[in-house]
Amino acid sequence: MFNKLCIIGVGLIGGSIAKAARQNNLAREIVGFGREQDEENLKIAKSLGVIDAYYLNLADAVLEADCVIIATPVASFQAIFQTLKQQHLWSEKTIYTDVGSTKGNIIAAAEQVFGFVPDNFVPAHPIAGAEQSGVQAAIVDLYRNKRLIITPVSHTNPEAVQKIQIFWEGLGAIVSIMDAEQHDKVLAATSHLPHLLAFALTDMLGTQDKENEIFKYAAGGFRDFTRIASSDPTMWRDIAFANKQAIIPLLAQLRTELANIEMLLATEQQQMLFDIFTHAKNARQRFLDQLKT
Amino acid sequence: MFNKLCIIGVGLIGGSIAKAARQNNLAREIVGFGREQDEENLKIAKSLGVIDAYYLNLADAVLEADCVIIATPVASFQAIFQTLKQQHLWSEKTIYTDVGSTKGNIIAAAEQVFGFVPDNFVPAHPIAGAEQSGVQAAIVDLYRNKRLIITPVSHTNPEAVQKIQIFWEGLGAIVSIMDAEQHDKVLAATSHLPHLLAFALTDMLGTQDKENEIFKYAAGGFRDFTRIASSDPTMWRDIAFANKQAIIPLLAQLRTELANIEMLLATEQQQMLFDIFTHAKNARQRFLDQLKT
Repeated sequence: MFNKLCIIGVGLIGGSIAKAARQNNLAREIVGFGREQDEENLKIAKSLGVIDAYYLNLADAVLEADCVIIATPVASFQAIFQTLKQQHLWSEKTIYTDVGSTKGNIIAAAEQVFGFVPDNFVPAHPIAGAEQSGVQAAIVDLYRNKRLIITPVSHTNPEAVQKIQIFWEGLGAIVSIMDAEQHDKVLAATSHLPHLLAFALTDMLGTQDKENEIFKYAAGGFRDFTRIASSDPTMWRDIAFANKQAIIPLLAQLRTELANIEMLLATEQQQMLFDIFTHAKNARQRFLDQLKT
Repeated sequence: MFNKLCIIGVGLIGGSIAKAARQNNLAREIVGFGREQDEENLKIAKSLGVIDAYYLNLADAVLEADCVIIATPVASFQAIFQTLKQQHLWSEKTIYTDVGSTKGNIIAAAEQVFGFVPDNFVPAHPIAGAEQSGVQAAIVDLYRNKRLIITPVSHTNPEAVQKIQIFWEGLGAIVSIMDAEQHDKVLAATSHLPHLLAFALTDMLGTQDKENEIFKYAAGGFRDFTRIASSDPTMWRDIAFANKQAIIPLLAQLRTELANIEMLLATEQQQMLFDIFTHAKNARQRFLDQLKT
């Protein structure tokens, strides 16, 4: 499908793309780019056969690539666009895409650097991940049956969008297309808010634990509920700020919901609390039923 | 250890006690009690060999039992105490204990019925459970390496406490003793608050999902974070009201924490948000390290 695929950032996400692309014959040659401090990881990626070659020089990495995938943390995108522009590496013949967890700010970064959103840039986000990081954690079926959202702007080249869709379907993903604002709202609700909540609760209880050893008495429910509080703080700080427009109203809404529950407890409104719990349980069942299909 | 063990309520919790007590030779005879509508479940318990016999009449069930374990939902305790008192079934020769998730309200219920907390009642709480219910879900090692907290009052018979401690250690549990208020505060933080939070978030997002199909794009992190929102609404309504004294201040504290995060986002205080996330991640690691040991 692609002659030369260049992956900028060969970690868990980028490495899993490379592995799956190779297994599904979606690229003849796969190369990786990283910074000097990433060389150890890139060496491992090469020795594992995840990539065919790696470069610490962006010009060499993207040279004649027909597809470039940016798979670095979202905070680094602007600098990468900047380098591609300044070194005259941006090519009309190449399709650029990414895997960032937020889309509005990435499109804004491209616009700021180029003065417009290049029509051969296809913003995309695979909804898959893991707590681990690094290319050793990459797995060939990370994207199988997972959602991938493409968020083109009005003038994004439809052929480029189609190619990226076919590429991801080749990796096993289920592709949806929506605008960036919608994407950011949906992900704020289903991913960013839960992460912030898990961090907030674990932060608060961590202080109590220091005083009071409460974690000794926490069990499996607590372990699962707080699992995402073990996520990478840098990555989540960046996501939180990148999508704060969508996250802040949800945090406020949740505070209202919690205040309501407090009020129901204080005023012994048993039936209304029961109704909230039942609505939640049914909603989660709807979610589980969708996961299966 | 016990000649006749009577379990009031042979569900997942009571059934698992029975199975483990039998395997570890902690009771010569194990009988169950239930209401008429529980007879089907009790029949299954007997046919599976979890109990030796069952009764729908409390007098027969507790007759000459040297230990009675109340393993029904916390909301039913007062009625059970009432029946034991009114039918003159409460015996000085018997040790009574329970497995309720809240302790202050259960001690209060005993006090209200008897006019004092009987010194042969040993309040206890095994920190173990599962999403399933019913005796079919009972497992013999549910309590192995799990915490069990005994919350005696000042005049609880120390020999009775010791017997219950030895009994639970025989089931594989790690026993701690603390007062009921401390228990209720700890559990409010590590269990009740997370459950309320999971219900609140899933309730709120469930409404959005109906309008907007957001759950389609939710992934594994969301599944784990909301798992406890699939818990039984009746049971959790009862726990929430039983322990509202400890829960309400925590809900208020969490709202303050969330308001602070909103403020940090709105005012671009990146370092402070990073510090919260890092503190949370480290706190969870401390919790995980304890789980292993």
